[in-house]
Amino acid sequence: MKVAVHGVGTSHFGRQPERDLVSLAWAAVREAFADADVTAVDAVWVGTVFGPAGVAQRVLRAMGITGIPVITVENACASGTTAFAEAHEAVRTGRYGRVLALGLEQMSTAFAGAITPEATDPEGRSGLALPALYAMAAARYLHDGAVTPAQLAAVSVKNHAHALHNPRAQYSGSFTVEAVLGSRMIADPLTLLQCCPTSDGAAAAVLGPARPGAVGVRSVVLRSGAPWNHRSPHVWGHDVVRDTAADAYAAAGIEPADLDVAEVHDAFTIGEIVTTEALGLVGPGEGGKAAESGRTALGGEQPVNPSGGLLSRGHPLGATGLAQLAEIVWQLRGDAGRRQVDGARLGLVETMGGGVSVLDGNACVIAVLEAP
Amino acid sequence: MKVAVHGVGTSHFGRQPERDLVSLAWAAVREAFADADVTAVDAVWVGTVFGPAGVAQRVLRAMGITGIPVITVENACASGTTAFAEAHEAVRTGRYGRVLALGLEQMSTAFAGAITPEATDPEGRSGLALPALYAMAAARYLHDGAVTPAQLAAVSVKNHAHALHNPRAQYSGSFTVEAVLGSRMIADPLTLLQCCPTSDGAAAAVLGPARPGAVGVRSVVLRSGAPWNHRSPHVWGHDVVRDTAADAYAAAGIEPADLDVAEVHDAFTIGEIVTTEALGLVGPGEGGKAAESGRTALGGEQPVNPSGGLLSRGHPLGATGLAQLAEIVWQLRGDAGRRQVDGARLGLVETMGGGVSVLDGNACVIAVLEAP
Repeated sequence: MKVAVHGVGTSHFGRQPERDLVSLAWAAVREAFADADVTAVDAVWVGTVFGPAGVAQRVLRAMGITGIPVITVENACASGTTAFAEAHEAVRTGRYGRVLALGLEQMSTAFAGAITPEATDPEGRSGLALPALYAMAAARYLHDGAVTPAQLAAVSVKNHAHALHNPRAQYSGSFTVEAVLGSRMIADPLTLLQCCPTSDGAAAAVLGPARPGAVGVRSVVLRSGAPWNHRSPHVWGHDVVRDTAADAYAAAGIEPADLDVAEVHDAFTIGEIVTTEALGLVGPGEGGKAAESGRTALGGEQPVNPSGGLLSRGHPLGATGLAQLAEIVWQLRGDAGRRQVDGARLGLVETMGGGVSVLDGNACVIAVLEAP
Repeated sequence: MKVAVHGVGTSHFGRQPERDLVSLAWAAVREAFADADVTAVDAVWVGTVFGPAGVAQRVLRAMGITGIPVITVENACASGTTAFAEAHEAVRTGRYGRVLALGLEQMSTAFAGAITPEATDPEGRSGLALPALYAMAAARYLHDGAVTPAQLAAVSVKNHAHALHNPRAQYSGSFTVEAVLGSRMIADPLTLLQCCPTSDGAAAAVLGPARPGAVGVRSVVLRSGAPWNHRSPHVWGHDVVRDTAADAYAAAGIEPADLDVAEVHDAFTIGEIVTTEALGLVGPGEGGKAAESGRTALGGEQPVNPSGGLLSRGHPLGATGLAQLAEIVWQLRGDAGRRQVDGARLGLVETMGGGVSVLDGNACVIAVLEAP
C-alpha cells in the first residue's frame, strides 16, 4: 500500500527545562492530529534516546491516547526517523491503518552539559565524544584541502540565516563567517557556532494510506553501517549515508539531482558537508563550496536545511528526524512561509545516528517524499 | 509468509554483576545461531528496558554483527516479546529473510535494590511500585475469597520445584507452602518467595520462514491496555491479557484448552493466578486452585511455567519474553529434558509490561507456537 503523511506537528525547540515531555509531546501531537484532521490513530511508534523507561506510555496517557499498541524505539540520533520508518512499514503492509510517529527528547534536564559517555562507551570515555569525532572529520577535510575554514563556517552562516524565517527554531541570526570562526572553540576546528545546541523538543507525524492533498512517501530506507573503517578513504559516517541513499533513490526511482529540497543531519557544520557529498547532491569535495556559493541556501539550486537544521532549529535527539520530516512536508505542501522553496516537488530527509559511540556502527534513515 | 523459530538461546540467569551485557548477549546469540545453524542474519531487533542508549550496537559489534539494520525497542517487561513480535512481522511480510530477536538486561548493576521510580512516575513515587501493585491485586483476591494464602504460595512452590530441572534458572528449591508464607514480607500479602528476583540475563531467537523441524509461529499479538480502571471488576492487568489472548487464539485458530504448555508472566505469585484466569486456561477464581491441585504443575493437565517462570528462572526485564519463548520452543521440540511436557504440540508465551507505572497502560504480547 502506498503511504502518505497525513499531518505533522512540532513543539517549539529550545532549552525548555521548565516544560516536561508531556507538554512538549502535546504540542507536537495536537498539531499533527489537527493537521491530519484525526482524533485517533491505531498504533504509535515513539522515538527517544534518553527518555526514561515507560515515558511513551506516560506521555500518551496524559494526552488520552490509550488502549492502542505503543512501541518505543531507540536508534541514537536516528530514533525519530526510525519511528517514522516503522510506522511507514506498518501502514505499507496493512498492519495498521493510521499510525502516529512521535519523537521526543528533553536534553536540558537529562544532562548538565554535553552527553555524558556511558561506562560501556570506550571512545567517549577517552574523550572521543561526538564533537571530537566530528572535529576529526573536519580536520581530515582541511588536511586534504577538501574544505576551507570559511566553507565550514558558511554552513553555520547559511543555516542560522534560514532559521531567521523559522519561528520554532532554537537559535537564528545573521552571522558572518568571521563571527562563526571567532566564536568559542569547542573541538578544533569546530567553534561554538558550528555545533548543534542542547535542545528540548518533540515532533510528530500521522501516517496513513496515500490520499489526495497529502505528501506521499516515495521511499524510506533504514540501514546500519559497519563500524568505522579507519582505512576507508572517507571520514566516518560517509559510507552508510551513501549506501542508504543509493537504496532510497532506487526505491523512489529518482536521482539526487531530482531533489528540490533536503533536510540533513548537520549536527556539526562538517556533518552537512560530508552528507551533501555522500547523498550525491554535490560531488566529492564540493560540499563546502556549495554552502559558500549559495547553491544549498534558500534561493539556491538545491536548498539544504531550510528549517535551520540541527545547528539552528536545535537537536532534541529523538525528535530531530520527525522535525526534519515536518519541514519537508511543509515545503512540499507550500506551507513553509518565508522559507518556502518555490515549486518544491521532491524532498529528502536524512538522519544519522551514531549510537553514543559511533564506532559501534551508525544508523541512517533516509526518506524521499513527494508533493501532493 | 509463515514464520518459524529456527533457533533459540539464553545466558545463565542470575545476579551476575561480574559479567557485562556483551558477555550475557554473547551466550544467548551464540547458542541461538548454533541452534538455527546460521552465522548471520539480515536484521536485529533488541529489547531492553534499562540498557544504556546505544547498547544494542555496542553488544552486537562485540559479536561481529555489524552492517545490518538494528532497532532497539522498549516496552517495559514485554520488551523481549516486543522484539520478537517485530522480528516476526518483518519475516511475515518479507521485509527481511532471517531476523535475530535479542533481549538483554543487567539489573544488578543498574539498581541497588528494586527498580527506582522515575520522577515522572507518580504511582512509584507514592510507594505504589510493582510489588505494592501486585500486592493490592492479591489483597483483592483474598478479600473476594478468590484465592487463599496457601494457594498464592502454591505458585511459588510449584515454580521453584520446576526450576530444580532447569540448570539456567537463578533460583530453585523444594519449598513448602509454610516456608513460602514464612519468608520475609515484601508487600503484604506477598512474601519474598512470592516475588521475582533481581536478575541479569539475555535470551535470543532466530526467526525465518517456516521450515521442517522448526517450531512454527501460529500467532503473535501485541496490545496495549487502557490505564487501570478502578471500577473494573477485575484487578489491573487482567483485561489486557484477556483481550490479547482472544486475538491470539482467533489468529491461531485454537481454544485455550488446546494448549499443552504455557510460559506466563509470574513476576509475583498473584500474577500467574490472574494470568491463567485471563488466558482462559482456568475459570474465574480457579487460578489458585489450579496451582494448589497440581493442574498447572509438570505432570498436570496444563503445565504453566515449566522453566520456573520469572519467580525462579529470574526476570531480567528485556530478556524475559525471549527466555519464555526459548522454553516453549524447547518444549515443543522435545528438548526440555527433565522438565519436558510429554507430547507438547501447542504452547503459549505471555508477557505483560506495565511501563514503570502500570497505570499508564499495560503492554501485553502473546504468541502461540506449534511443534514441528
